Amino acid sequence: MKGKIVLEEHWESPDFPAMGSHDFTDPDYFAKVQERLQEYEKRIEDMDKNGIRTSILSLTQPGIEGICDKKQAIELARRMNDHVSQYFLAKHPDRFKAFAALPMQDPEAAAKELKRAVEELGFVGALINGYSNIGDENTAQYLDEPRVWPFWEEVEKLGVPVYLHPRIPLPNQQRMYQGYEGLLGSAWGFGIETATHALRLMLSGLFDQYPDLTIILGHLGEGLPFTLPRVEHRLRHQRPETHGKHKQPVTEYLRRNFYLTTSGVFRTQALIDTMLEVGSDRILFSVDYPYESMEEISSWFDQCPISETDRQKIGYKNAARLFNF
Amino acid sequence: MKGKIVLEEHWESPDFPAMGSHDFTDPDYFAKVQERLQEYEKRIEDMDKNGIRTSILSLTQPGIEGICDKKQAIELARRMNDHVSQYFLAKHPDRFKAFAALPMQDPEAAAKELKRAVEELGFVGALINGYSNIGDENTAQYLDEPRVWPFWEEVEKLGVPVYLHPRIPLPNQQRMYQGYEGLLGSAWGFGIETATHALRLMLSGLFDQYPDLTIILGHLGEGLPFTLPRVEHRLRHQRPETHGKHKQPVTEYLRRNFYLTTSGVFRTQALIDTMLEVGSDRILFSVDYPYESMEEISSWFDQCPISETDRQKIGYKNAARLFNF
Amino acid sequence: MKGKIVLEEHWESPDFPAMGSHDFTDPDYFAKVQERLQEYEKRIEDMDKNGIRTSILSLTQPGIEGICDKKQAIELARRMNDHVSQYFLAKHPDRFKAFAALPMQDPEAAAKELKRAVEELGFVGALINGYSNIGDENTAQYLDEPRVWPFWEEVEKLGVPVYLHPRIPLPNQQRMYQGYEGLLGSAWGFGIETATHALRLMLSGLFDQYPDLTIILGHLGEGLPFTLPRVEHRLRHQRPETHGKHKQPVTEYLRRNFYLTTSGVFRTQALIDTMLEVGSDRILFSVDYPYESMEEISSWFDQCPISETDRQKIGYKNAARLFNF
Amino acid sequence: MKGKIVLEEHWESPDFPAMGSHDFTDPDYFAKVQERLQEYEKRIEDMDKNGIRTSILSLTQPGIEGICDKKQAIELARRMNDHVSQYFLAKHPDRFKAFAALPMQDPEAAAKELKRAVEELGFVGALINGYSNIGDENTAQYLDEPRVWPFWEEVEKLGVPVYLHPRIPLPNQQRMYQGYEGLLGSAWGFGIETATHALRLMLSGLFDQYPDLTIILGHLGEGLPFTLPRVEHRLRHQRPETHGKHKQPVTEYLRRNFYLTTSGVFRTQALIDTMLEVGSDRILFSVDYPYESMEEISSWFDQCPISETDRQKIGYKNAARLFNF
Repeated sequence: MKGKIVLEEHWESPDFPAMGSHDFTDPDYFAKVQERLQEYEKRIEDMDKNGIRTSILSLTQPGIEGICDKKQAIELARRMNDHVSQYFLAKHPDRFKAFAALPMQDPEAAAKELKRAVEELGFVGALINGYSNIGDENTAQYLDEPRVWPFWEEVEKLGVPVYLHPRIPLPNQQRMYQGYEGLLGSAWGFGIETATHALRLMLSGLFDQYPDLTIILGHLGEGLPFTLPRVEHRLRHQRPETHGKHKQPVTEYLRRNFYLTTSGVFRTQALIDTMLEVGSDRILFSVDYPYESMEEISSWFDQCPISETDRQKIGYKNAARLFNF
Repeated sequence: MKGKIVLEEHWESPDFPAMGSHDFTDPDYFAKVQERLQEYEKRIEDMDKNGIRTSILSLTQPGIEGICDKKQAIELARRMNDHVSQYFLAKHPDRFKAFAALPMQDPEAAAKELKRAVEELGFVGALINGYSNIGDENTAQYLDEPRVWPFWEEVEKLGVPVYLHPRIPLPNQQRMYQGYEGLLGSAWGFGIETATHALRLMLSGLFDQYPDLTIILGHLGEGLPFTLPRVEHRLRHQRPETHGKHKQPVTEYLRRNFYLTTSGVFRTQALIDTMLEVGSDRILFSVDYPYESMEEISSWFDQCPISETDRQKIGYKNAARLFNF
Repeated sequence: MKGKIVLEEHWESPDFPAMGSHDFTDPDYFAKVQERLQEYEKRIEDMDKNGIRTSILSLTQPGIEGICDKKQAIELARRMNDHVSQYFLAKHPDRFKAFAALPMQDPEAAAKELKRAVEELGFVGALINGYSNIGDENTAQYLDEPRVWPFWEEVEKLGVPVYLHPRIPLPNQQRMYQGYEGLLGSAWGFGIETATHALRLMLSGLFDQYPDLTIILGHLGEGLPFTLPRVEHRLRHQRPETHGKHKQPVTEYLRRNFYLTTSGVFRTQALIDTMLEVGSDRILFSVDYPYESMEEISSWFDQCPISETDRQKIGYKNAARLFNF
Repeated sequence: MKGKIVLEEHWESPDFPAMGSHDFTDPDYFAKVQERLQEYEKRIEDMDKNGIRTSILSLTQPGIEGICDKKQAIELARRMNDHVSQYFLAKHPDRFKAFAALPMQDPEAAAKELKRAVEELGFVGALINGYSNIGDENTAQYLDEPRVWPFWEEVEKLGVPVYLHPRIPLPNQQRMYQGYEGLLGSAWGFGIETATHALRLMLSGLFDQYPDLTIILGHLGEGLPFTLPRVEHRLRHQRPETHGKHKQPVTEYLRRNFYLTTSGVFRTQALIDTMLEVGSDRILFSVDYPYESMEEISSWFDQCPISETDRQKIGYKNAARLFNF
């Protein structure tokens, strides 16, 4: 299938390398990943081989979010956005787009940087790597917290989506993974943290206040298509004050305010479940390059047992509509 | 549909009431639950109305697992097992069976108590409410830990299944849920904790050592049918020492050593996903009474769009085979 | 679910009653059907009860198509269209729309009558009951035959869809059903005849010549979502001159030139298969009233396990877009 | 996947070549088919390459059923069964099994020949190519007709399954296909004829009289998983005398008395629908060699998105159980 668009595709700058969860990763694998994070020639080759027209790039995790010092975060986000703009976008404006990196430690500064990235650099939204550290590595600021809402107001105004990317659970919250730290840096810990974060956004009432916000989740929604209906069913028996100020059932937000990508997933069974929960209009093809292989995910997607109509939607039409490509 | 068997059905003794997660629960709802936890007449009425022949009873969570004092746990487990035997089973031996409550704080004592429950009281297995506290409420002993293996040896010898029931995440591990504590005591926190616990069992190599162990998970496997294939896919890039001593891919264990029940779920989409991941031979109907309504789960199940052949398997044939009913 | 639109909803005039296949039908059932074919009060009551906003009416089968005399067919089609217009549409213009009945025995006259019905009476398309008799009851003219193509040219110009409704197989082609004539007048013989007719249209090259034609099939495409991929697969081994002049694979036409309705079907398994073959954008809710019960089909549809997004599309959004409601 | 068993695998004798439907087939394709029908070396090579352990062979269609002369049919069936026994089975008893060819024109003779084939030649059942001609090519005897019932009595006694293979519709019943004769000899005409034939068996009451009969249908049940529920739903409105003497709903027979194979199908969507209608215990992998490619069907099946448990059942476990391999 030609013309695909992908949205969870990472880069890094040599002077700000990926960190953290990679402690548990196979060093050979990670060396190859890192080599590809920083370049674009092999990337374009891979895109060409696998029918991918456009990659929307984002700074690899934990990125700016992991910087405990607010001022440094602000400065670095700006530098990273300029870098991806000059190094990738300027050279291949037809093949690369970008999501902004943002200093969420200071929501006002983040709003400002997003505005600059969208309006001056032509970025198509932002990608946020989960919670942000404030002051130290065990302190998390989640995106549903009241002080972050002014940021969301600006996001809604700009009309761009925000990709909520996984991040490793807080260091002091890892007892459950103890002895199996490989789970943390892989899909499991990341997925739990991110799905919970998305759930916090839904429960907080954020989407009632800013109904036009669009959040993108990778990895087929981090399991939410399967698990969310039961959460909704159970919340009816919980005291109202224990689950936020949301006005709609949580599955409504999933269908209306979220897009889910196939990044890192090539499981038809899970895709079918997702289609039956949120509909094919809200699913977007993605790879998670270079952590995942374009070939592996594309060859699965190009042939998986869905209608050609849905393949085109998921492959590029939904993204083209979302981003006005 | 007549003749159904259910496996995640709870009871409590008036002198050892349910605790913990119920802080976040609607008090009216919980009052009704508690009334029904302790009696059997309405229970049998409900079973009759909904085509349920047999309920396998278990002590409601956190049960023995939440008792920090080892000696007290041993004593109470024995008392609870005697109580369910005398109060429920003796009166309706044709309608009630039981899973033993066990003092996992002392694995040898737990093994002994399981043997007694099975051989002397006619119990059909055990139900364990996740990790056990040792000494204090922030200390967890997971079931994959080496000191628990002698217990598993006895379980395999006895040839009975163990139901791994959800438990609330450790108090000091709840930052992620902060502000939304209703998530903890409902499906979300419980499900994450339990799925992770099941994953620990798989990764530990326990099923390589004791290949005939059978674990039962509720709530359609706590999301694992959807999420586990991706975990398996990612583990290939993690350092081996970070994900246990398992010899098989994790989905193999899910298919061979686990049964998944429908307790608390009435979502056809998730059921179909589960069938396509583990096959209908490994799925068991269950309700999660009295937290859930027999009527709600049964009326969904009796009509959900699967073949009658699979409905009979899931409804009672698989359970009858597993328990030699 | 409120606001549903239905498309395979029949009426008859007292002076031109339904005939033919009803020989094999239970007389009590058919008496009730016939009573409801001719009236609109109970119909609107049923619509209100079941969340149906708009019914698109069509003359019940075999209708004009079964009239062997061409002139009589032309005259009667006109009269029937006027009747439905005056008796149903004029009284409830907000609740009823209509598909034209057409004298396909004379394709030019049919084109003219369709134009009149659309432009003067405000009809939204046509419904054709399969092949037309020419001269005698054993002679069939199928809609792919060259002399019918001028009609299709006009259809494309008018930009309205044509519903291809089932018709009983030709009397002299019924050996296969002998002894089981109830199969003929029910879903089976009808479905085979209609699916084959649709296949003839695809193979003929009609949609290559008139790519904007839209055909609607009832009963989830008369089985084609399940069977067509295999037909396509096998045609590659047939001599080209034995399967028409089509330029595209047949499944392409099914996805591009057809809409499929749920008329008379309330089988979730078949709906899921259809969604995975043609996508939810091409499926339309319908009942097949009064042969089928609005309550039975609606209550299934309103709760079947698909996403709310797709439920809205299939329930009314797709139809509203197709007909510019 | 290793160890697969296949059941719709054809052979022919040089002195009794395949005929009939091949008029419409591409001659190059058919030449290659015919070459492979008569030999076993390439066949075994293909089996080895594609993980197929055992092929159950059957005389290619229309076979004995197309012989209008009864005596000739009896004689030829015997000769063909001896031929496959000596030429294929004797040489590779571990790789080949056989279904008997039968002279259904004389049901008593057919019963006798089946008994001989099973008891003396070690055949595992019979394969019947649809209706049989009696006297001329336009006369059909269907297998539900009363004079065939003594044959079925013997089949039940022998405890072997009968594969109901497709046959082209009667020459004088082909108006519907006129101009598109390629449809006849491909999946379409064959499928309609065979599905209707299977439906006749169900409606006749045969399975009420002989409840232990097992019929195998190819091509995922010739569409019946999709279409049969609607037929059942409609039959309730047909006069009882128009749809046979069956005592059960037709879908019950499909689930209890039929097995469905994947011969000639590699469509995951249709397989999922079939699994949700009849359950994976009743589905058998098959190829339809040499009309279909072992590689094409196997490579699809080995990777299609079902559980490994079901893959093993469908791939060989169900067949091994059915045939006591």
